[in-house]
Amino acid sequence: MTPLAIRPVDDPALAARIQQRLDHLTKPPGSLGRLEELALRYGLARGTPDLRLTRQAMFILCADHGIAAEGVSAYPAEVTAQMVRNFAAGGAAINVLCRQLHIEPRIVDVGVNGDFEPELPLLRRKVAPGTRNFLHEPAMTLDQATAALEVGIALATDAAAEGFDLLGAGEMGIGNTTSAAAITAALTGCEPEAVAGPGTGITEVQRRHKADVIRRALALHRPDPRNPVAVLAAVGGLEIAALAGLLLGAASRRLPVAVDGFIASAAALVAARLAPQVLGYLFFSHRSAEPGHALLLEALEALPLLSLDLRLGEGTGAALAMGLLDSAVRLYNEMATFDAAGVSERTPLM
Amino acid sequence: MTPLAIRPVDDPALAARIQQRLDHLTKPPGSLGRLEELALRYGLARGTPDLRLTRQAMFILCADHGIAAEGVSAYPAEVTAQMVRNFAAGGAAINVLCRQLHIEPRIVDVGVNGDFEPELPLLRRKVAPGTRNFLHEPAMTLDQATAALEVGIALATDAAAEGFDLLGAGEMGIGNTTSAAAITAALTGCEPEAVAGPGTGITEVQRRHKADVIRRALALHRPDPRNPVAVLAAVGGLEIAALAGLLLGAASRRLPVAVDGFIASAAALVAARLAPQVLGYLFFSHRSAEPGHALLLEALEALPLLSLDLRLGEGTGAALAMGLLDSAVRLYNEMATFDAAGVSERTPLM
Repeated sequence: MTPLAIRPVDDPALAARIQQRLDHLTKPPGSLGRLEELALRYGLARGTPDLRLTRQAMFILCADHGIAAEGVSAYPAEVTAQMVRNFAAGGAAINVLCRQLHIEPRIVDVGVNGDFEPELPLLRRKVAPGTRNFLHEPAMTLDQATAALEVGIALATDAAAEGFDLLGAGEMGIGNTTSAAAITAALTGCEPEAVAGPGTGITEVQRRHKADVIRRALALHRPDPRNPVAVLAAVGGLEIAALAGLLLGAASRRLPVAVDGFIASAAALVAARLAPQVLGYLFFSHRSAEPGHALLLEALEALPLLSLDLRLGEGTGAALAMGLLDSAVRLYNEMATFDAAGVSERTPLM
Repeated sequence: MTPLAIRPVDDPALAARIQQRLDHLTKPPGSLGRLEELALRYGLARGTPDLRLTRQAMFILCADHGIAAEGVSAYPAEVTAQMVRNFAAGGAAINVLCRQLHIEPRIVDVGVNGDFEPELPLLRRKVAPGTRNFLHEPAMTLDQATAALEVGIALATDAAAEGFDLLGAGEMGIGNTTSAAAITAALTGCEPEAVAGPGTGITEVQRRHKADVIRRALALHRPDPRNPVAVLAAVGGLEIAALAGLLLGAASRRLPVAVDGFIASAAALVAARLAPQVLGYLFFSHRSAEPGHALLLEALEALPLLSLDLRLGEGTGAALAMGLLDSAVRLYNEMATFDAAGVSERTPLM
């Protein structure tokens, strides 16, 4: 994998400068709560007190999963390719939110099982036409896992060169909550039963089957938790590997990323195990309704911004969080200061 | 007070029709979580399955409080009028969020102690130049409380006539967390100590003094909790009374309202005690950092949308919630259906 330099986000002089501006805006200090924290973290990630948020992209990384053959999803595998067409046509939830929030969607085929018409507005980065069924064999070769990571890194470095200042990390892939749950269990040591959730809406019987599939797969492959790329190869997904690469590549260019839900957070855990400094550049968007997400957020020591019972993926939660980041940056830039507005500061009482 | 007819929001045929559309959009049923609930509740409030959100206003109701003389706020009383000028100049937090989210701000002087230049873009509805100090005498006469309620009702009915389809309810008034806390204690029977919070940032010593002021005021006036207008007159604020009227007037015109934080929620409790059906039209925006807000939300059986540690007021949390409502309505209107997009529905497994 391309060696990446990620700067730690720990400049106390810059933090003080951003905080000073926040404290001179016409509001009681700290009264904008987490919006102030967002402005501060955004500036620290960008390495400047001059916050700008002018161009945002949502990466929707798409791939198929061999494990879908085991009946772990409420939807048939062909829905991955169908949804890619829906994204391209602008009809999916993420398209609606991107239009509302002025985010440019980038649909990426990292491993969909199917060919797309040349006129579809996709980024074609197919590493393989889906993973293999990891109940029986490794999902990918190590070379494929590395190639998918490199796809993500390249997408992020291109986005930085194009002038984007905020990215979103979303995904689509029938079967990918099973892969994300297996990655979570492998990297954190938690029980498959605790991390296998209803996904797009399977029954409790199916959910127990899903947990059993994960348990058997981990017993078969025994991936080394100290080697995140080996975990990806064993039970990962091409879009999850590419998401991990996207986060690492973005951080190496000081480009903050809003991380969507359960699947994107599993990719964030992979990225953080490869390079812990990446976390300074990530904004965890929401707490999804998928039960394994809480475990992941705990492992990442992340407090998400929203809790709206979303469980769709695609980047929908990330898009809403990008709206909040936009609010935070605008407040930082556009609010009057006490001096400028002629508003009295706090009474020095008692 | 003008008699108001508020229709209960309980049309099962309409609910089924809205839910049917939600369930045919290209996403697993229910996977957009609370955004789906927002679309459903919005449609029920408007009384139609054809959701439109084309014009939104944020009402920022401003007034002064005699109780501020007791040293219950971190800021001097003149900040109310200074902030009204800041709102008029576009420099406050709520102005920034209104610009971002395409919400028209309406700054209303219901009772600010001071005169404003005629050219300022304010709605001039002053009932009195602030309330009296309710530690020693009733904050208002019953006539003033009723007049302030009528101001709010008229603002809402005018907004309905102008074609707004969503309102926000925000406020500004130095001292008004003390009034909101006293109203909450009077109407719910909770202890002043439990509902007196740090407001804009007072010390713990000041906070205990604030609780003591509320306790003594309620012992002096003993307002009847079954008479919300009497509670307003005893310990209320002109902007809180007007907010309660705004919510009632909006509901009578089937106009939904995003309710901001602690102070606006106290007004919502007053409104709900006057006409419980009003709750079908209200969207509780966020859980504020002010501790009394949790008690109010419990009394209102409300689960707020956001929890971002905001404690500024002005309508800032309501504006962010209006952005989520906009998302919900757009998703409902713009997402493709399974049929139209050629996406397979759920596998009927097991």
